[in-house]
Amino acid sequence: MPLITFLPSEKTVDVKAGTEISDAARYAGVDIAAPCGGEGTCGKCIIEIKSGNADFSSITIDKKYNLACKTKVLDEPLTIFVPEPIESKNGKFSDSLSDIDLIDPALLPDENNRKPVISFYEVNVPLPQNEDGLSDLDRLFRSLKDTGITETIQMPLSLLRSLTNIIREKEGHINLTLSLKRNENIQKIITIEPGKKTSSKYGLAIDIGTTTIAVQLVLLPAGKIISTKTEYNKQVKCGLDIISRINYALKPERLEELHRLVLETINTLISDICSTHKINKQNIIDNVISGNTTMIHLLLGLIPEYIRLEPYTPTLLHASHYCAGDLKLNINPEGLTWLSPAVGSYVGGDITSGILCTKLATDTDQLNLFIDIGTNGEIVLGNHDFIMTCACSAGPAFEGGGIKFGMRAASGAIENVNIDPETGKPDCLVIGNTSPAGICGTGMISLLANLLKTDWIDPNGKFNREKHSDHIKTEGKQAFFILANDDDPDKIICISEQEIDNIIRAKAAIYSACSLMLKQVELTFNDLESIYIAGGFGRFLNIENAKTIGLIPDLPKEKFKYIGNSSLMGSYMLLVSQSFRERQSQLANKMTYIDLGLDPDYMNQYSAALFLPHTDSGLFPNVMSNINK
Amino acid sequence: MPLITFLPSEKTVDVKAGTEISDAARYAGVDIAAPCGGEGTCGKCIIEIKSGNADFSSITIDKKYNLACKTKVLDEPLTIFVPEPIESKNGKFSDSLSDIDLIDPALLPDENNRKPVISFYEVNVPLPQNEDGLSDLDRLFRSLKDTGITETIQMPLSLLRSLTNIIREKEGHINLTLSLKRNENIQKIITIEPGKKTSSKYGLAIDIGTTTIAVQLVLLPAGKIISTKTEYNKQVKCGLDIISRINYALKPERLEELHRLVLETINTLISDICSTHKINKQNIIDNVISGNTTMIHLLLGLIPEYIRLEPYTPTLLHASHYCAGDLKLNINPEGLTWLSPAVGSYVGGDITSGILCTKLATDTDQLNLFIDIGTNGEIVLGNHDFIMTCACSAGPAFEGGGIKFGMRAASGAIENVNIDPETGKPDCLVIGNTSPAGICGTGMISLLANLLKTDWIDPNGKFNREKHSDHIKTEGKQAFFILANDDDPDKIICISEQEIDNIIRAKAAIYSACSLMLKQVELTFNDLESIYIAGGFGRFLNIENAKTIGLIPDLPKEKFKYIGNSSLMGSYMLLVSQSFRERQSQLANKMTYIDLGLDPDYMNQYSAALFLPHTDSGLFPNVMSNINK
Repeated sequence: MPLITFLPSEKTVDVKAGTEISDAARYAGVDIAAPCGGEGTCGKCIIEIKSGNADFSSITIDKKYNLACKTKVLDEPLTIFVPEPIESKNGKFSDSLSDIDLIDPALLPDENNRKPVISFYEVNVPLPQNEDGLSDLDRLFRSLKDTGITETIQMPLSLLRSLTNIIREKEGHINLTLSLKRNENIQKIITIEPGKKTSSKYGLAIDIGTTTIAVQLVLLPAGKIISTKTEYNKQVKCGLDIISRINYALKPERLEELHRLVLETINTLISDICSTHKINKQNIIDNVISGNTTMIHLLLGLIPEYIRLEPYTPTLLHASHYCAGDLKLNINPEGLTWLSPAVGSYVGGDITSGILCTKLATDTDQLNLFIDIGTNGEIVLGNHDFIMTCACSAGPAFEGGGIKFGMRAASGAIENVNIDPETGKPDCLVIGNTSPAGICGTGMISLLANLLKTDWIDPNGKFNREKHSDHIKTEGKQAFFILANDDDPDKIICISEQEIDNIIRAKAAIYSACSLMLKQVELTFNDLESIYIAGGFGRFLNIENAKTIGLIPDLPKEKFKYIGNSSLMGSYMLLVSQSFRERQSQLANKMTYIDLGLDPDYMNQYSAALFLPHTDSGLFPNVMSNINK
Repeated sequence: MPLITFLPSEKTVDVKAGTEISDAARYAGVDIAAPCGGEGTCGKCIIEIKSGNADFSSITIDKKYNLACKTKVLDEPLTIFVPEPIESKNGKFSDSLSDIDLIDPALLPDENNRKPVISFYEVNVPLPQNEDGLSDLDRLFRSLKDTGITETIQMPLSLLRSLTNIIREKEGHINLTLSLKRNENIQKIITIEPGKKTSSKYGLAIDIGTTTIAVQLVLLPAGKIISTKTEYNKQVKCGLDIISRINYALKPERLEELHRLVLETINTLISDICSTHKINKQNIIDNVISGNTTMIHLLLGLIPEYIRLEPYTPTLLHASHYCAGDLKLNINPEGLTWLSPAVGSYVGGDITSGILCTKLATDTDQLNLFIDIGTNGEIVLGNHDFIMTCACSAGPAFEGGGIKFGMRAASGAIENVNIDPETGKPDCLVIGNTSPAGICGTGMISLLANLLKTDWIDPNGKFNREKHSDHIKTEGKQAFFILANDDDPDKIICISEQEIDNIIRAKAAIYSACSLMLKQVELTFNDLESIYIAGGFGRFLNIENAKTIGLIPDLPKEKFKYIGNSSLMGSYMLLVSQSFRERQSQLANKMTYIDLGLDPDYMNQYSAALFLPHTDSGLFPNVMSNINK
């Protein structure tokens, strides 16, 4: 078998002729980004052949540079250089306590319902007596029943093994934690320790996003947030969006890889938090996980294939109580996992968790709209009478995908661009005040808004070819806008008309989905009390710029509420309140999923939104008056 | 560290000076019998020092021969010869279909209650539809609910992972097995397969005895017994009786060893049965385990220490539904295990299972007695109004323990001995018609009965020193009866007065326990409808001989019913009938445990029974008339 050598790591592997280079890299333990899931469409897995020949028959860019996912090994040795992907150079996440300050305090669990499923007990188990005929376990159960527990008590085998000694260590004085499985009417013992309670117990709120994963450590039962940590989902290298991941998972060993990678990401975050705060993982005894339907399938190791095939059917929407140990989460293995229920293949537990941070979860008759802007956009509209929801594919443009110099909102990303009306010269604000490495989603919105306001692009997103600017270059029919480093061809950062079009398509998908849902209930944007914007992308979003390009409706600024990572904050609420878990289940049942593709008006709405800000400029009166100033 | 070499295996190990030789042997993987559990009292772990010196300071028999459990390694190399224990030379168990023919057919589950907890379903899950908003799991649950299931359905994660493909393989046509957890009101899915049911499904009935373990394969739901296999419990080398095992388990690594050994024994039996009958272990989906309280503790890995310490409190008496996988039984890991409930530390699940084979489990007002004669004797007395139970330590004498030439009822064992009244010459019947290797329990009862009837021993079990026999040898105060091979000092088989005394103590323990229980309810043996005798030992028991020595009461022969391994047959009934599980739970709750040690009359009763047949010969009128003939 030919020997394949990967540079710069110098890792090697022997593989059969015919193996795809992306698979060879995986066997060698070399990461090659595959944002499109190995479909050969994103061009991010380009590798350079340093020596030897490969089978380029599938797609050829060049004899030297080619796509790892579409190039196969021949029966000869090969040396390959793998460029470092732009994403991994940047974007360490800063620790922050949480987004809890972004949430209306009236929406958080109050004293009445701030009761976790975990409860704490301290009991004196009577010492064994002659002829009472009771085992250690019998006496323990009696003592617990005496405290008023009415449910069946469940004792895991692992704890039973230490019961004999623990119950005798302090003459029957013990402390325990129990976790309620409400739908099974069972209280499961999670920890049992001799004497008084001496160690604090914790829970985890976890948000599994397609791009990032956040883990929050919470003291129980108090609900105090101890730490929040976020990292890129290690699955990112296997595909940037959900569809790419599902395609990647078609081979069983790749499904196993995705399953392993999401667990690795979560468990690394848990280990980091535990070592920072010197916490024994055994003391983490409860957890809530919210994520989109595909992410939850990959977490559980379920085949996600049918999520992307009509009629888009997931294996499961809501799960029973799985043990942390069975899920291989590195916490107390007896702890139970609450998985936020999904509504459909494209409206997942991240949304049923997220709307807990909005008035959609309350008894109001006012109409509210929730928009989670990520690679997929999910939208929820409703009040106490009805809740409807839909999803639209915004694509990864707002998160830096599908844009050559796109990157996430991390150090080195251009996040704001002002344009000189006369010369078209850009004035870039860069995160971390470093030299620019790329442009993030908010940067692109700012760029488009300001190019439009200064008339350097038209409502179609095409450059104004009637004016001259040093910053606009034309190559054949294509034109580029140079954002930075125009003096160095190796470092130049630019954006093409084609890429601007990608952003327009993304914003059109979201706007038209919102307007179509309103139209279905014969209401308009003006009927909305609030518009909640969730998702990491929204954090630095400039509302005026977003309105200018028509991503969001032209409403007064105060109607927009940015609620951050609402999936994580909803998970926090579910962790500290069992009644919120009931509320979430009820909301999930109440939500009607709207398949936009089935609405004959969808293409009209979408096409009309493919303008800046919109074909019907009357919908954006304030924006238009600004542009025309 | 000194190197220790064990012969004849030539296995070696380096250990620290001060290590006990029995531990060194364990590290080296050499089996040394420790019937007393390493207490230095049984003398069965004798080893021979071939070269080098050892630390004999604890107990010394000889500089050359010593007890492995009481001899320590010095800081020098040592070569040790380990004699092969007598038990391992003999006693392969023959396969037999089962003891089911020994049970009164009226006591077996009839058509009305022959319904296992396992149920079989074949359903057509509708294919996914646009906008029905149902996951694969939702549609599966609906289809199952449509068949009339009212309990909560539980889907294990391992099966969920294959659901997506299985449900599509035959367009929604699938077959499943579910197992009922009655007290939790849950139906757990155990298997799910595409299309019609094509493979048979099985359950296991398992009896874990201190000495032997039996596994029976049963076709479900039909209840047909496919195979029964019995083997020695691999724990035997760590102690012959329960107390020895508990002592052995005092060190955590030895508890772990006992836990491993019982699982090894069971899993080897399962593998044997599966390979004989070409059965996939995944198709074994249910199991019932009955065993004494200590055995169940060791199976679960629970500390058994407090079972032997006043007030004799086990960790648990009855268990919830543990998964076969969690218990590490090598069958379908999702299968649930029913552990027969125990009544106390010395009346275990083998007894609550065993009495299902008797009228004690029926609604009769007739009084019945159940005696399980093993290392421990367990006795149950009652009718539909009350059930009382007690345990007595018979010691291992009936099973060949504590007797130099004692062995189990296996090939080479003397099972019957006639005595020539004139010369005292024994006429031995040997199992398997081979040359004799030792004497089993029934052989010893036969020997004592015939020595008594021929006046070679007196009612105290002492040899008649007034008559001369070539077969009785006296050494100081001790006398021996030579059974076989008197011409070869290396092969001679004899029994001492001291050993006869051990047997008398064993029979006295059982008889006095029975009579004391009857006395407590102011009844006598004559009030009994039947006396059920259970246990492997009873299989070859001659009722007349047993009456002659006063092991059992002097009642008409037809009142005695031998029911074989009733623990196993009860387990079989529990496997095929969920209503028998309820009945067993009710019986276990109804049973009153009598601690004989707390009855002031017990020592009187016991002492009175230390004669052959009894101090009060009026209790044995028929026996006495025979002896005096």
